[in-house]
Amino acid sequence: MTNQGTPMRNYAAILGNLGNTRDRFCTSYKDNPSTVEMLRRAGRIDGISGIELVGTWDIRPDNVGEMKTALADMGLACVSIIPDLFADKVWRFGSLSARDATVRGRAIDYLHAMCDIAREMACGIVNIWPGQDGYDYLFQSDYLAERSWLVENVAKLAQAFPDLRFALEYKPKEPRTHSYLARMADTLLVSLQTGCPNVAVTIDTGPASAGGEIVAGAVVLARQAGDRLFHMHFNDNYKQWDDDMIVGSVHTIEYLELLYWLDECGYDGWLSMDQYPYREDATGAIAESIAWLKQFDAKVAQYRTELQRTIADGDAVATSRLLRRVLHATPDHTL
Amino acid sequence: MTNQGTPMRNYAAILGNLGNTRDRFCTSYKDNPSTVEMLRRAGRIDGISGIELVGTWDIRPDNVGEMKTALADMGLACVSIIPDLFADKVWRFGSLSARDATVRGRAIDYLHAMCDIAREMACGIVNIWPGQDGYDYLFQSDYLAERSWLVENVAKLAQAFPDLRFALEYKPKEPRTHSYLARMADTLLVSLQTGCPNVAVTIDTGPASAGGEIVAGAVVLARQAGDRLFHMHFNDNYKQWDDDMIVGSVHTIEYLELLYWLDECGYDGWLSMDQYPYREDATGAIAESIAWLKQFDAKVAQYRTELQRTIADGDAVATSRLLRRVLHATPDHTL
Amino acid sequence: MTNQGTPMRNYAAILGNLGNTRDRFCTSYKDNPSTVEMLRRAGRIDGISGIELVGTWDIRPDNVGEMKTALADMGLACVSIIPDLFADKVWRFGSLSARDATVRGRAIDYLHAMCDIAREMACGIVNIWPGQDGYDYLFQSDYLAERSWLVENVAKLAQAFPDLRFALEYKPKEPRTHSYLARMADTLLVSLQTGCPNVAVTIDTGPASAGGEIVAGAVVLARQAGDRLFHMHFNDNYKQWDDDMIVGSVHTIEYLELLYWLDECGYDGWLSMDQYPYREDATGAIAESIAWLKQFDAKVAQYRTELQRTIADGDAVATSRLLRRVLHATPDHTL
Amino acid sequence: MTNQGTPMRNYAAILGNLGNTRDRFCTSYKDNPSTVEMLRRAGRIDGISGIELVGTWDIRPDNVGEMKTALADMGLACVSIIPDLFADKVWRFGSLSARDATVRGRAIDYLHAMCDIAREMACGIVNIWPGQDGYDYLFQSDYLAERSWLVENVAKLAQAFPDLRFALEYKPKEPRTHSYLARMADTLLVSLQTGCPNVAVTIDTGPASAGGEIVAGAVVLARQAGDRLFHMHFNDNYKQWDDDMIVGSVHTIEYLELLYWLDECGYDGWLSMDQYPYREDATGAIAESIAWLKQFDAKVAQYRTELQRTIADGDAVATSRLLRRVLHATPDHTL
Repeated sequence: MTNQGTPMRNYAAILGNLGNTRDRFCTSYKDNPSTVEMLRRAGRIDGISGIELVGTWDIRPDNVGEMKTALADMGLACVSIIPDLFADKVWRFGSLSARDATVRGRAIDYLHAMCDIAREMACGIVNIWPGQDGYDYLFQSDYLAERSWLVENVAKLAQAFPDLRFALEYKPKEPRTHSYLARMADTLLVSLQTGCPNVAVTIDTGPASAGGEIVAGAVVLARQAGDRLFHMHFNDNYKQWDDDMIVGSVHTIEYLELLYWLDECGYDGWLSMDQYPYREDATGAIAESIAWLKQFDAKVAQYRTELQRTIADGDAVATSRLLRRVLHATPDHTL
Repeated sequence: MTNQGTPMRNYAAILGNLGNTRDRFCTSYKDNPSTVEMLRRAGRIDGISGIELVGTWDIRPDNVGEMKTALADMGLACVSIIPDLFADKVWRFGSLSARDATVRGRAIDYLHAMCDIAREMACGIVNIWPGQDGYDYLFQSDYLAERSWLVENVAKLAQAFPDLRFALEYKPKEPRTHSYLARMADTLLVSLQTGCPNVAVTIDTGPASAGGEIVAGAVVLARQAGDRLFHMHFNDNYKQWDDDMIVGSVHTIEYLELLYWLDECGYDGWLSMDQYPYREDATGAIAESIAWLKQFDAKVAQYRTELQRTIADGDAVATSRLLRRVLHATPDHTL
Repeated sequence: MTNQGTPMRNYAAILGNLGNTRDRFCTSYKDNPSTVEMLRRAGRIDGISGIELVGTWDIRPDNVGEMKTALADMGLACVSIIPDLFADKVWRFGSLSARDATVRGRAIDYLHAMCDIAREMACGIVNIWPGQDGYDYLFQSDYLAERSWLVENVAKLAQAFPDLRFALEYKPKEPRTHSYLARMADTLLVSLQTGCPNVAVTIDTGPASAGGEIVAGAVVLARQAGDRLFHMHFNDNYKQWDDDMIVGSVHTIEYLELLYWLDECGYDGWLSMDQYPYREDATGAIAESIAWLKQFDAKVAQYRTELQRTIADGDAVATSRLLRRVLHATPDHTL
Repeated sequence: MTNQGTPMRNYAAILGNLGNTRDRFCTSYKDNPSTVEMLRRAGRIDGISGIELVGTWDIRPDNVGEMKTALADMGLACVSIIPDLFADKVWRFGSLSARDATVRGRAIDYLHAMCDIAREMACGIVNIWPGQDGYDYLFQSDYLAERSWLVENVAKLAQAFPDLRFALEYKPKEPRTHSYLARMADTLLVSLQTGCPNVAVTIDTGPASAGGEIVAGAVVLARQAGDRLFHMHFNDNYKQWDDDMIVGSVHTIEYLELLYWLDECGYDGWLSMDQYPYREDATGAIAESIAWLKQFDAKVAQYRTELQRTIADGDAVATSRLLRRVLHATPDHTL
């Protein structure tokens, strides 16, 4: 929406969001559709123009051609490959930072294969979420050695594939009680320590919030460290756990602020939905998230000048007055 | 707003909100106006028709008459007396539940004096926040004895003043690391254990949220335990601490839900502002809170039927769709 | 240990602790042994004299006789039946409190069948963890109706089986973002509202801690509400999530205090291990928990008089001095 | 200490710990001794050989000579100067990062004066806790500009006093709802962004824990970023707020792990007590903290080899078995 300053946004979703859901108690809240069926459903969601694929689950050396065709047929971009470093029990004590050198080697080999696929799919981003890299118990891990292996191995990979962008996704806990990539700042440190310009960060709004961050603040940290925000995953929660809910179902103003600062920091990447609709209709849940984001963006666009001014003034009472207007008034164009 | 079903609300504020603010690091963020000056400022806040007075600070045996006249002159009701069980260091190890019988005795005497004042001020509610009653260290307190003293002493007081309503205010921590009245359910237990129909609960939305409650759920708990919600204090925070911020500055949908359930549960008491505007203009901060509540109430009124239906259906995707409309559209009457 | 005042403890474990572990990302961290094999392993754990069985998984109408014999052969008591109200997706929107009357009916029928089994197994406790009874989204649930159904249905069940004891287990969240039985006090309210003396509470130390409780304080709450603690589940965590770790692996003094207050409150029920050793040897993890509890009990027994005195005094510095001695010295008998 | 491998530790305390305590409700839990009297009390605490002085409160241009003599007379080192960037309301919207250029200028001038004092007192560390630098409300602050000012101003200061070491102390919240220096990793980023080798970090164990860090992990982060840990403040809490309690009063194993990793990372700085004994005897509370640290250090020294081995093995069950021995046995030398 040019005249109001609404930025052009590109929306995407992680394909697996449309599949079966489970937790440690219930192994199946839903039936598991085929990858093709999930793609079909994703393609029907209003506003979506890209898809993220989880390695091994959605895409493997044996089905790259098939997936490439399928995405092309639906007019969907392949936004990223998310290598599976979390679902195979071989990674249960970590992947790139595992104590066991054999496991680290397997992780590197696997990631090389995934990077080859990313090239073939022409998707610029490899989204690395090393969910099992961390620890559960005190006195269980050699923090120093394992962190070093993590940095070294990410660096090697990034050097081997200089044409790809490696987006490290952080999360304070789950599945381990403590992750090595816990928040924006420690992930930036890893990114900087690799010395590779093609290593930066994915923010998942949920774990960021649950880890105590104001997400807009995390965006600014990445900007300040040299534009090191490559990718965005969206969902909502109650700030204590990665509940992976519909965007906007719990928080309102924090999303407005986040979208505002993404613009201020010049972010022009994807807004990708990363939810886990345990009991909900997945297509509907993703569509709702995008609809909320559009609604929030329209509000930000409509009031951008006033928002800039209120930030410049720093008077919380005046800010409150403005925000009541923002949430009160009808955007100029209806969504 | 009868045609839309907006309930009649009575707004109030705690007088002390308008005074000096401090924390353990900075003893004074503001100048401290006189009680009379604070009253004058409170009276000018749009929508306010009642005031809560903190015992000793605002009202004492020696100034009852003067305060009564002052409030009458300004057309303000005395909503409650809040006895000071937190600012005098004599209560540092508790008041009604203190290990030291002499301290417990002093607390009872003091509360009797405050109840006499409440009668004289014709305010029906004595709002008891026993903020120092709890513990800091493990193995420091005889939980069983102290809890029993608390119940016994509240019961004695309630029996001595059957014409007054005693509203117990809960908070999980601060100033102690653990309070005896921590959440709605344990406060209801104390209320029930007194056996007195004139002992029930005050919800402060901030500590309720910080304690992990969905405040609407706490309202329902009190309803289910026999309409044991006497009073409401309002503010906002980031759910980890009692930040005492402007209502609506952080959360949106949770306030909509809270107001909805207050109506469903037939709450017809005061909505009183209980903030701590450390660095803000206090009058403005309180006025903003009331303005937000009115705006939220108007939304709830406008969509009450749809909200009832979505709750009956329990489909989170449909609920999300409705809430986007609620936050999108303009209320029929402008605030 | 009579001369030192160590109470007689009866240790147990939930059989399923010995089985496969999974989370929403990884469907299998381990191989799943057969029920018989799990029983064999459990029986070898030093100190265990009882077992809790999960309904449907471990015990069903068709294998009651077999299980009864198996337990008898190993000299293990059947401590409780834990009906499965969490793993079958039929309960995904609740069981006893489900909006859908048909689902509530199925839950009641299922629980009747489980109570018949409990009788046949001669185990006095039916441990009800209604993990799916709660809600995820705001404006999703009719809190008032659902809570009422929960109370009514528990009451009916307890009246139908007056010879059994129904222990309600609470947990603030997971698998729902909010559970109806969240903490000790709200679970006591449900227990009291049933009007049934055979309905009380199970404390799981993990969710209790994660919900913000000092567990010893929860024990006292149950005592004060009329000795309403029927059962204890043990594990440890970092206080933010139900990590289900080895007892004592994170906290030390809080366990000492918990065991102390269990004695003060006359608890003579089971201490049952309820862990989820995702990546650990299950037998070893359970054995460690029991060993820690014995070690803590020995410390409490050795210093019981001093601990009583320090609580009576309430001087945190003196308490600290005592606790350093407690953790410093060797118990008189070696474990 | 050579024979058991106990490292030489240097213990200190912040002088203000011995003074009056207050919170936002109660302005005075204690009487306020004079600086000289506090020094006298501090000097009597067993094991203390250094003192940290808060600028303006304890030390000013007019009393430098007097304080220098007083410390020398008592044989106490001046460990650090902690400039007061938190108690004067001029900093209420920040100091080095304040929106108001005049305030930033005053902060720089003030810090120059404090650095001059640090030189005169021959204390190598200026401990900068910019507690008011952060924000409370959403849309209140220009995160990007304010963070830049913070980095620039710290850099200028560090360049002006290259002989001093600037230790930035972090804390996620309080007195603001969000601090710019929130955790180890973001503070390291600031430290690195200054480009100054004499800018690094102070860990306060309390805020670190309350911010979700395993403190040992934070130590390792600083090591990995180039030995950027200058100073340590000690206290304990319940992990949700900076309760500033006696070390060891809540946690046990985490301190063992912290001390272990301080050694592994070659930390040879001060262990300084930073408590806030609201209701306790301050001298006793500080003495207890040091006694706990000595006791923990003795345990670590006694079992260092086994601890190294268990970390190398990474078997949580074996680690648990070892930790039971550690907490069970008597250290070889009695404290």
